[in-house]
Amino acid sequence: MFYHDNKLQYKVRVEKPSPAFANMLQQAIGGIEGEIRVCLQYLFQAWGSRGPKKYRDMLLETGTEEISHIEMLATAVALNLEGAPVSLQEEMAKDKVIGAVMGGMNPRHVLSSGLAAMAVDANGVPFNGSWVVGSGNLAADMYANVMAESTGRVLATRLWEATDDPGMKDMLAFLIARDTMHQNQWLAVLEELGGLQGVHPIPNTFPQTEENKEFNYAFVSTKITDMDGDGDSMMGARWTSGPSMDGKGEFKLVRAMPQGGEPMLGPPDPRGHAQKEQMMGEAGGMMDKIKDAL
Amino acid sequence: MFYHDNKLQYKVRVEKPSPAFANMLQQAIGGIEGEIRVCLQYLFQAWGSRGPKKYRDMLLETGTEEISHIEMLATAVALNLEGAPVSLQEEMAKDKVIGAVMGGMNPRHVLSSGLAAMAVDANGVPFNGSWVVGSGNLAADMYANVMAESTGRVLATRLWEATDDPGMKDMLAFLIARDTMHQNQWLAVLEELGGLQGVHPIPNTFPQTEENKEFNYAFVSTKITDMDGDGDSMMGARWTSGPSMDGKGEFKLVRAMPQGGEPMLGPPDPRGHAQKEQMMGEAGGMMDKIKDAL
Amino acid sequence: MFYHDNKLQYKVRVEKPSPAFANMLQQAIGGIEGEIRVCLQYLFQAWGSRGPKKYRDMLLETGTEEISHIEMLATAVALNLEGAPVSLQEEMAKDKVIGAVMGGMNPRHVLSSGLAAMAVDANGVPFNGSWVVGSGNLAADMYANVMAESTGRVLATRLWEATDDPGMKDMLAFLIARDTMHQNQWLAVLEELGGLQGVHPIPNTFPQTEENKEFNYAFVSTKITDMDGDGDSMMGARWTSGPSMDGKGEFKLVRAMPQGGEPMLGPPDPRGHAQKEQMMGEAGGMMDKIKDAL
Amino acid sequence: MFYHDNKLQYKVRVEKPSPAFANMLQQAIGGIEGEIRVCLQYLFQAWGSRGPKKYRDMLLETGTEEISHIEMLATAVALNLEGAPVSLQEEMAKDKVIGAVMGGMNPRHVLSSGLAAMAVDANGVPFNGSWVVGSGNLAADMYANVMAESTGRVLATRLWEATDDPGMKDMLAFLIARDTMHQNQWLAVLEELGGLQGVHPIPNTFPQTEENKEFNYAFVSTKITDMDGDGDSMMGARWTSGPSMDGKGEFKLVRAMPQGGEPMLGPPDPRGHAQKEQMMGEAGGMMDKIKDAL
Amino acid sequence: MFYHDNKLQYKVRVEKPSPAFANMLQQAIGGIEGEIRVCLQYLFQAWGSRGPKKYRDMLLETGTEEISHIEMLATAVALNLEGAPVSLQEEMAKDKVIGAVMGGMNPRHVLSSGLAAMAVDANGVPFNGSWVVGSGNLAADMYANVMAESTGRVLATRLWEATDDPGMKDMLAFLIARDTMHQNQWLAVLEELGGLQGVHPIPNTFPQTEENKEFNYAFVSTKITDMDGDGDSMMGARWTSGPSMDGKGEFKLVRAMPQGGEPMLGPPDPRGHAQKEQMMGEAGGMMDKIKDAL
Amino acid sequence: MFYHDNKLQYKVRVEKPSPAFANMLQQAIGGIEGEIRVCLQYLFQAWGSRGPKKYRDMLLETGTEEISHIEMLATAVALNLEGAPVSLQEEMAKDKVIGAVMGGMNPRHVLSSGLAAMAVDANGVPFNGSWVVGSGNLAADMYANVMAESTGRVLATRLWEATDDPGMKDMLAFLIARDTMHQNQWLAVLEELGGLQGVHPIPNTFPQTEENKEFNYAFVSTKITDMDGDGDSMMGARWTSGPSMDGKGEFKLVRAMPQGGEPMLGPPDPRGHAQKEQMMGEAGGMMDKIKDAL
Repeated sequence: MFYHDNKLQYKVRVEKPSPAFANMLQQAIGGIEGEIRVCLQYLFQAWGSRGPKKYRDMLLETGTEEISHIEMLATAVALNLEGAPVSLQEEMAKDKVIGAVMGGMNPRHVLSSGLAAMAVDANGVPFNGSWVVGSGNLAADMYANVMAESTGRVLATRLWEATDDPGMKDMLAFLIARDTMHQNQWLAVLEELGGLQGVHPIPNTFPQTEENKEFNYAFVSTKITDMDGDGDSMMGARWTSGPSMDGKGEFKLVRAMPQGGEPMLGPPDPRGHAQKEQMMGEAGGMMDKIKDAL
Repeated sequence: MFYHDNKLQYKVRVEKPSPAFANMLQQAIGGIEGEIRVCLQYLFQAWGSRGPKKYRDMLLETGTEEISHIEMLATAVALNLEGAPVSLQEEMAKDKVIGAVMGGMNPRHVLSSGLAAMAVDANGVPFNGSWVVGSGNLAADMYANVMAESTGRVLATRLWEATDDPGMKDMLAFLIARDTMHQNQWLAVLEELGGLQGVHPIPNTFPQTEENKEFNYAFVSTKITDMDGDGDSMMGARWTSGPSMDGKGEFKLVRAMPQGGEPMLGPPDPRGHAQKEQMMGEAGGMMDKIKDAL
Repeated sequence: MFYHDNKLQYKVRVEKPSPAFANMLQQAIGGIEGEIRVCLQYLFQAWGSRGPKKYRDMLLETGTEEISHIEMLATAVALNLEGAPVSLQEEMAKDKVIGAVMGGMNPRHVLSSGLAAMAVDANGVPFNGSWVVGSGNLAADMYANVMAESTGRVLATRLWEATDDPGMKDMLAFLIARDTMHQNQWLAVLEELGGLQGVHPIPNTFPQTEENKEFNYAFVSTKITDMDGDGDSMMGARWTSGPSMDGKGEFKLVRAMPQGGEPMLGPPDPRGHAQKEQMMGEAGGMMDKIKDAL
Repeated sequence: MFYHDNKLQYKVRVEKPSPAFANMLQQAIGGIEGEIRVCLQYLFQAWGSRGPKKYRDMLLETGTEEISHIEMLATAVALNLEGAPVSLQEEMAKDKVIGAVMGGMNPRHVLSSGLAAMAVDANGVPFNGSWVVGSGNLAADMYANVMAESTGRVLATRLWEATDDPGMKDMLAFLIARDTMHQNQWLAVLEELGGLQGVHPIPNTFPQTEENKEFNYAFVSTKITDMDGDGDSMMGARWTSGPSMDGKGEFKLVRAMPQGGEPMLGPPDPRGHAQKEQMMGEAGGMMDKIKDAL
Repeated sequence: MFYHDNKLQYKVRVEKPSPAFANMLQQAIGGIEGEIRVCLQYLFQAWGSRGPKKYRDMLLETGTEEISHIEMLATAVALNLEGAPVSLQEEMAKDKVIGAVMGGMNPRHVLSSGLAAMAVDANGVPFNGSWVVGSGNLAADMYANVMAESTGRVLATRLWEATDDPGMKDMLAFLIARDTMHQNQWLAVLEELGGLQGVHPIPNTFPQTEENKEFNYAFVSTKITDMDGDGDSMMGARWTSGPSMDGKGEFKLVRAMPQGGEPMLGPPDPRGHAQKEQMMGEAGGMMDKIKDAL
Repeated sequence: MFYHDNKLQYKVRVEKPSPAFANMLQQAIGGIEGEIRVCLQYLFQAWGSRGPKKYRDMLLETGTEEISHIEMLATAVALNLEGAPVSLQEEMAKDKVIGAVMGGMNPRHVLSSGLAAMAVDANGVPFNGSWVVGSGNLAADMYANVMAESTGRVLATRLWEATDDPGMKDMLAFLIARDTMHQNQWLAVLEELGGLQGVHPIPNTFPQTEENKEFNYAFVSTKITDMDGDGDSMMGARWTSGPSMDGKGEFKLVRAMPQGGEPMLGPPDPRGHAQKEQMMGEAGGMMDKIKDAL
């Protein structure tokens, strides 16, 4: 169950409001690298958690923290929109340099939200629930989480570079720090689950005797080497020789070569109403069947 | 540049066509864990690759291989749909057990594609380009790839469990093997980039002196311990004490506490046409400004 | 800022797990009438709230409560999926009646989430951030909220009818009660803002002297009465005569009649590469200009 | 059945074409507050209408009128795009102030539609059929309609503020007037259905004896009052004491407190291939079962 | 401007309601091959029409007719849902064969719309405005329309096969007839615009002297013939020799061969925070620049 | 199966990088007229191809070529982004004319992809799998392909007009040439399938004796001629008289007139919880049934 107070997790100050930066911040709210995604991702993983209770507990903790991050960013968006131009004529009368920046504003911040944050990204594309990954496999989910915090921290550092507002830089330095922690936190679970060799291949419950043993540690090279004459460029790479990362195989390099034949589908069902010519085949043999159907 | 031949990378056989299984296979084609996603993800990462050329080369190789996987799965869908019922009356006349399974069929396999695969998932939700992650940061991208191959392999093992068709099991055993390899392959890059301590926090180019140093290795517990009286359940966990995974800090446990005040937004811009009552504030002070505007 | 404990707001029991009912419950989680929508809607309205602080405070309270509702429903989905069939052959061997119900299962509950809830609706369509409405106009937002709680309560009563599991009926009776309260709560704000006559037309800050006064209280009937000879069926209705609901006009009935002429767009810009024939106009007059361009 | 003539419902004039304003107008066409939404919403409500015929009739009337509004706005977009720059070099040569505004143009107006309106919003996000609400409950639908006309009128007044083109202001004054009427019209139905006390809680056909009577008129406060020491800020508000708006209960204030225990899900199904460690539980008890499965 | 009456364009009768068929019909309403798409497509093409007025007029006519088709289909969905099961227990008590069919029902027809049509397809995926194609080039648009009526008629014939309800078959026979007409109608415009040789290549206003003349009538074969040894299978096909369809070139067969070199992107901008290792290049040369930036 | 080499199909040079043009190019990658769409469309049509093998083969060839086009465009985007501004302050310091153009940049090219292409269109809207059309009817699919290459070539010529970079113009001249070829190629199949009269109406396997013969060659005019007094403007058009394009009928002009009555749906199912008033009908007759249900 969830509770709140009326304060923010960390202070949010904006010295020089910038509607263009408000738009950029939306990526950290409603984008695929953003906070709504991680918030719902950790909470849904918690709510569907099967297995050791401590992971459910941790996911619930951090999922809850992320709500506070959405709140901080939504507040930052609203503050960056204070005093934003709301008409095109007003915009034209303004200093031209500001005008250019205004080009980066989201018109829906004026038209739809009345100068407030929305559940969209920096292109105005709405948040999409498909981004909320929870597979039921704890290790796969931890990688999904490391990935989310990695692209999230990359995003936050880019936002930090994009602004010179000290308040915004300070807020972002906090969020960047939290991403540092969260990367470490999910990695700690992976270590606890056995590290690379204990965890992989994910899932570690599928008997490897059942997988195709010719191709499970083979790098398949699709490059047509004879056409540009520079050899197999992958030869000698870490992923084409030596022990595999999971310690369960030996990397090798294999040239791509079809193992299957040419696929051959049956003729169309007459009631699916393909064209007549499709039912005859190359040699017209199915014509009788078609005639009956028509 | 890309080339093809007319054969399949691996053989695709279906002994007992099952329209319900055809629908399930769509998840591996057009779903977020599916092959269109990894195919485009690796190719876009390659095409935008900046830095050492060998990573661009490798991404291009495996991105190309994934096209062949989509082809295999699309063929498998078409073969599983051979002989599928195309009318409701036909369905009713059939054996009831088959009928029940038919409940799991995608009606668009009859109506829209004429018994062929589509670029959708097992709910008929179309493939979405937002799933194609390429951040420009190689380590973040490698985690995105490990994650994709992990949820992808989990999916493939579940499909393997869902069928007892030997042809389908054999094809899935091949795809599961490729996922094993691909997990290992992206992990090899991460090792080459320095392993946990060299790679993290991602991005490793943001000066950690600039991030908030009070919170970058602190587990923030949002749990209200006094309400259920069972203490800080996170105490002593791997992620609340000891050295951090990236070797650059020491984990600690911090109880959630607001660091920021209560946010205070300005009154609405009159031209944004909020309600009158919003412009007055609690004490009605902005009334004059409003009167002018009306 | 947000906090949690590990318990549920209200008890969630499932006596007879039903994967088909699990799927139906998804509508109340990730559907447009569902809890993620109201949760984010109230929170975003709070975070962007300009004007009297008490409304911001209230929105924050109820937005927080809604997270607990998502949690309850996600738990209910997971419990309804316990023991669900994970393979088609298993399904076939089962009792046929169960089999039929299984037809209503979401295959992604097996394939993607490992028997847990997802951020999707009962068709597997992902939650969409565009549903989160916050206009910056308090009265418009309150109507958005009444509407959300009304369609939400309709949904909850239908779910209540769809199951005979006593645990599920009890949980839904709680959620239905909360929707009753929330409808009343947003209506209380509308009353406080002045009721129908104080609040409407929304926004009440746009000077009505500026709107078209011929059509602002006129019901425009588009029905072609002479074609079916049964008169203006709207005559005498509450919305075609008498005082308007906002007390600021008198309803009247007007027959649809074009007030504008036939629109006439200019010829295409040659560089937009329409077909040649489009640039000539009916009489071919623009041919010269085209010739130059080609 | 539907008919047309070639004229517009109201005149559409543009004196100074503005591609940036053309883009803003798209919100009123293809946005969630826009005319495609209300058009389809009223028509679908009519086509699915069960109960008194007069409501079906009215919905059909106003749904038809809204097609004419889409037509007006689409014409306005096309006229605002006349003479728009179609190349970047042309843009650069232009007056810089105009150039700044051009930043607000939708490039797809040049690239995809050839200077015409599209079925998208002001961010280029396509119209989405999920916005078309028709619940089958007349009162819920009327609130959906009041809400649509309220956010729609807020949008129209903001567009009115954003332009100083007299033709556009005149067209918008007409549309604003229609929104005034439509708000009143749907409210008239709600009055006819019994007003607040007759209509609520929606649906009014679910027996209130079946809902949870402890929580149906209780404001649940999730605020942790002891943490910031300013008391229950909701105390004494209209929604925490006194008769409820529907006249069927008495408001009260309740502090959030879990009524349910901690959720406890079963271990994962082995065939769902969670990680081994998840199946052991905290104490490793399920190991035997796993071993059999592997 | 638009008008209506209360009757249907063609009669809609359902003798044996079928909720599964109701779901299938949704494809013809809200699917990509459906009537909302063609309705909006023809209307938007009309509203943005530049050039001879008669095409605008025709598009307006047929766009208006399509609204009546949506109406017919929405009515058909509602009638097929009469008496549909609204609870799972009811379903279980029913005849098992019916039960199996019920598997094909859309649960949102019960939960969200109250047994009425929605703006979604047969998978419940919402109508998407991106499907509304209007390019501003009349010939391209006519092909978009022929294509829409072709996939639309294929869909309608499949629906006709899927049902044996005489009322539904009769309604579909009407819609199939209209698709026949509409295919012919758009083809008539293409003929009037000059037929294959006058119309193509579309757009016919781009000077062909500017296009690459080596590749504009060459079939590029990407097949690696030497790998399966069966020669260039495209040799001698209609599209590899002889005059081109537009009469402006001669088809030829060319083997795929890179005309461009290997792409070489610059190093990442340091402020984009790629990993350190990416900035060094293969040979580490950029290290100095990085050091400055950190 | 698929292969690659490391070179580009055609050279990609950018002399003056332009982030605004990079954004425009995205339409040709991830837009509905773009290369991901045609690539997947041709490949899915190939993989589901039933009937003469040569069409499958050809689709596979050209689908493979399109991957190389995505690669070229993605490279062009990355090159146009070299040196793009990554912070707002940097932008402000720049020449104002450049600044204005920067308004057309996609902020996610900085924030999300690190100056590389993404799978989105020129509005940042993600690629959508629903655009991948493969109906199983070869003629319908060929029209879908002609349409895709026609809107694609229109787009490419507009991009050609929008830039004056010689490298970009050269690359686009190549892509425009390929679109010329591909239009011709799909038309060649349509000719081979019998041309207009052999191919139409599509599908040509539905017996025309079963379609409604009163309306299959009738232009239905929905225009209300008596209201504007300018007669039936469609009279004498190619599509209202003379032989139909498919040679199987005679065009005629028919005035829109309802052939069906007024639809009449049954009362709502009580368990769907419409409002009470809906169940009574106009005359209140169903009250008894309702009372029982409550």
